[in-house]
Amino acid sequence: MTERLKKQLNFALEIDKEKNIFRQTHLSNHGRNENDAEHAWHMAIMAYLLREYSNEPVDIGKVMLMCLIHDIVEIEAGDTYAYDEEGKKTQALREKQAKEHLFGMLPNDQASELMALFEEFEAYETAESKFAHSMDNLQPLMLNNSNGGSDWREHGVSATQVHGRQDKTALGSKELFKVVDSIIDANVKAGNIKDE
Amino acid sequence: MTERLKKQLNFALEIDKEKNIFRQTHLSNHGRNENDAEHAWHMAIMAYLLREYSNEPVDIGKVMLMCLIHDIVEIEAGDTYAYDEEGKKTQALREKQAKEHLFGMLPNDQASELMALFEEFEAYETAESKFAHSMDNLQPLMLNNSNGGSDWREHGVSATQVHGRQDKTALGSKELFKVVDSIIDANVKAGNIKDE
Repeated sequence: MTERLKKQLNFALEIDKEKNIFRQTHLSNHGRNENDAEHAWHMAIMAYLLREYSNEPVDIGKVMLMCLIHDIVEIEAGDTYAYDEEGKKTQALREKQAKEHLFGMLPNDQASELMALFEEFEAYETAESKFAHSMDNLQPLMLNNSNGGSDWREHGVSATQVHGRQDKTALGSKELFKVVDSIIDANVKAGNIKDE
Repeated sequence: MTERLKKQLNFALEIDKEKNIFRQTHLSNHGRNENDAEHAWHMAIMAYLLREYSNEPVDIGKVMLMCLIHDIVEIEAGDTYAYDEEGKKTQALREKQAKEHLFGMLPNDQASELMALFEEFEAYETAESKFAHSMDNLQPLMLNNSNGGSDWREHGVSATQVHGRQDKTALGSKELFKVVDSIIDANVKAGNIKDE
């Protein structure tokens, strides 16, 4: 086996660990906590099926790959809950170290490519990044809404917090943001999201 | 919300159930059983990173989408273990019904597209299908091998059975089949796969 293939297969085995990184979101039908790998799978399929709602034309293959790899760093950096203000202070450094170590397992060309793709996602600037983020926001909101907003209730999340994150969904898709916005409104009215 | 978007979002929520379809394969480091959604995520990333080893040039975006959706039917048809000869007798009918019902939730154009892509995967004829199948074979073999072949031992699987499935990996990638073949050999020698 070549050194190149060995590195690729070592990386492939390493990322199996993403299946053990659990999120705050629960699966539909009041299921267990979701893990990062499942979340990424779900986002990639949703991106493909909903691409017609992107504000700008996107390279959908690139969006899908971005969705698939965007949480790999959490294997070493851990999941940071969207509304964990303390955790978010150290998130950037933790994720930078993890990015270099994990993607660095790949042959140089692929390591550079995946690091750049991850950085592009994080920067929230390109059409692909904005649409991938719309999926990263819509997917857990959809699950949480299907469970009567139990994740928001459990964490005592406020409308200001939810809007702080979810309003950026409109940067990727104004059309999907309308859905997001009406789901937030309904959950504020139902008392699942604190009205403050 | 348009009828079209409503159908797309209903489908997106429905496929969340794939995270509850568990396979015989165990995660690395002697972890729990793997589910279909995680397996599909893993395959899609591996397909992207290993595409240079495909025997024929492939549309990699298509391969990735094929990997992501290839097990959706199992939400209704259940997982059929690769070496379950009884289960395989009814697999085709179960999966046909599930395919029509699940993909049929989408708007017509997308329903037709995803059904056709699933059928293309199943037919094992195009370059994309063959390479996606190579991932479907390599990914669980890699995990099982990392666990000392415990899944083969548990099910008393024979070399004839493993070769029956894995030899087709060469249809998608002769290069990756060399790795597969040497892993099988090593596990036969170690007594993890029955030598018959």
